[in-house]
Amino acid sequence: MSETTRKESDVRRRLSLVAEPGDLRLRDLLQQHEPGAVLGAARGHGRLAGRPLPAAWQERAVGLDDADATTLARARTGGLRWVVPGDDEWPAQLDDLDHVDPLAGTAGAPLGLWVRGAARLDELLGAAVAIVGARAATTYGLGLAGELGAGLGDAGATVVSGAAFGIDAAAHRGALAAHGATVAVLAGGADLPYPRAHASLLDLIAAGGAVVSEQPPGQVAIRARFLTRNRLIAALAGGTVVVEAAARSGSLNTLHWADRLGRTTMGTPGPVTSQMSEGVHLALRSGEAELVTRVEDVLESLGGIGAEPAPAVVRRTTAYDRLGPDAARTLDGLRWSESLTTEQVAGRVGLATARAHEHLTTLADAGYAERLGDGWTLVRRADLA
Amino acid sequence: MSETTRKESDVRRRLSLVAEPGDLRLRDLLQQHEPGAVLGAARGHGRLAGRPLPAAWQERAVGLDDADATTLARARTGGLRWVVPGDDEWPAQLDDLDHVDPLAGTAGAPLGLWVRGAARLDELLGAAVAIVGARAATTYGLGLAGELGAGLGDAGATVVSGAAFGIDAAAHRGALAAHGATVAVLAGGADLPYPRAHASLLDLIAAGGAVVSEQPPGQVAIRARFLTRNRLIAALAGGTVVVEAAARSGSLNTLHWADRLGRTTMGTPGPVTSQMSEGVHLALRSGEAELVTRVEDVLESLGGIGAEPAPAVVRRTTAYDRLGPDAARTLDGLRWSESLTTEQVAGRVGLATARAHEHLTTLADAGYAERLGDGWTLVRRADLA
Repeated sequence: MSETTRKESDVRRRLSLVAEPGDLRLRDLLQQHEPGAVLGAARGHGRLAGRPLPAAWQERAVGLDDADATTLARARTGGLRWVVPGDDEWPAQLDDLDHVDPLAGTAGAPLGLWVRGAARLDELLGAAVAIVGARAATTYGLGLAGELGAGLGDAGATVVSGAAFGIDAAAHRGALAAHGATVAVLAGGADLPYPRAHASLLDLIAAGGAVVSEQPPGQVAIRARFLTRNRLIAALAGGTVVVEAAARSGSLNTLHWADRLGRTTMGTPGPVTSQMSEGVHLALRSGEAELVTRVEDVLESLGGIGAEPAPAVVRRTTAYDRLGPDAARTLDGLRWSESLTTEQVAGRVGLATARAHEHLTTLADAGYAERLGDGWTLVRRADLA
Repeated sequence: MSETTRKESDVRRRLSLVAEPGDLRLRDLLQQHEPGAVLGAARGHGRLAGRPLPAAWQERAVGLDDADATTLARARTGGLRWVVPGDDEWPAQLDDLDHVDPLAGTAGAPLGLWVRGAARLDELLGAAVAIVGARAATTYGLGLAGELGAGLGDAGATVVSGAAFGIDAAAHRGALAAHGATVAVLAGGADLPYPRAHASLLDLIAAGGAVVSEQPPGQVAIRARFLTRNRLIAALAGGTVVVEAAARSGSLNTLHWADRLGRTTMGTPGPVTSQMSEGVHLALRSGEAELVTRVEDVLESLGGIGAEPAPAVVRRTTAYDRLGPDAARTLDGLRWSESLTTEQVAGRVGLATARAHEHLTTLADAGYAERLGDGWTLVRRADLA
């Protein structure tokens, strides 16, 4: 790494300790000024281009050197590395965040990402799909998220999610079960297992994939940071699938971000009687998300990640499909409980007698009809069901 | 009824005994010739404009007077009346069928409708919604169809369906339970209860609504006639809702007709694990149908039938919504198990100390936080859940 690049990386890391990552005001300043200028202003007079910086930034800037030392020590202990734009492994799709409108006061590409896990981030996230959803998921939703996670793993896609209880964890676990790569994006520091009960799940995720966060190590996960985190999940993936979400759910926030970023937005339906599907149904009905029911649908909607187009749903063929329309019609005129003459059959189904006779003979040859004297009866066969 | 109109009505009735209603060839001939000319040709030389008529028509024409006498006798016994275009109660929306492409060899407006039930057909079908679906429905689907039928009945819409086992019957029964009007369109004669087990259901439907068919009384319901019947269900209603359909289902045929006719096409989602929702999901995913989960959605999609727009789904408000974003952020920095100083809280959530102190004081006044000496703790409240 060149001296300049190293310095830029340090500046971004230190700035992330001063300004809250994802803060709209930070995005706005970085559109006009270099990160070094913003950091310098926070540490100096607290003003940039004549306008005051937020008081919290100035306060934090006072203890910056200590905070940075703590951060680096924590990163070392947690085995985290700091990746910034310009680094080889920087996932360039994050830059799209600089070109879309803010949502709920949050905006902008992250200053950098703290990464736990040995795999190169850009390779890991070359073909990624986000699966997000309710924490209070139903067994239906959990099973579905697991299926999708495993199916995407099989298809060679990386599953991105938030490691939360419920759908997130089921999606990660599905990917792991299929020996697929998976990436967890946390709302707090990447060194802090959140939720704590998922400490060993996060270990498994980091082993073959990555646990990432734009927040400095040690940072606590508060509600506002889940909302800023969601934009990263949406931006890292080529598409987002919401599996179960109540009418008012953070997962829909991730979907909004995906929509804003021009990513593919998808949702899985469920029973209309399930509150946990209500939010997904709203998104499907409004057209914000496409309906997907299986991995093939997801790959088809993404239009590329998987190799083949979605195979058609297997349709059962019955004897009716193999017969021509008039033969099938003739067959429908027969009864098994009663013998009918050719004229009667023709009359019932609206065919000419000669025509009906022709079809009846063929049907008898094929074992569908039986002739007894002047009459015809239907032979009961399983393949007519 | 004028002499001319009476004659036209008779011609149409007799023609429907000669040519199969819904037959594409009949539609094509009627675009060039008057019904009387087609009937005359079938009874005469069997040729029209130099081209031979189907042999079955000529055969049937031979016994026409007897067949017509039988038909009229059956209609009298069954309490059926014959309604044709030009009659006051003719549902004019059926004429749309003359202007759309055929589907599976079927096309055209019906020659007329045999009607059982005292209500005027045009009034009954002024605001109608079709609910169709699988015969082998699940309890989930049956419940949903019943709910929608009852809800539409309450909204003053007439429920149109096919009286089949499963979804159809549940929809009719829902409408009846809400004292709403409902219309059954049969594939065989309107005097023949089909399926037989629904004889008393059909009596109830006819009592306040109507049982109708384009097939002459006594005609048997064969598979091909279900397909021609489906176009009438789609055409009579302003929109069609499919509630449960396997990937290959006759209900999807009704949906195709509705789509072709420019009617509103809707479907209800279900578990992706249910084969009975597979066909609906395919239609929703392809965009052929709009997702609806409740009567309000149906009315909204139809855009008119009901009075009010669909009420928004009720969303739960929590304390977080009532607090401002920074106050909520401050609250998230508190712990109930540990006392934190103002500086600590400010650091955790990324706010300036003075700002955090202000919010902590407000939160304490509101009963969300508790101050003890230098420290602040979170008060556990149900409304923060």
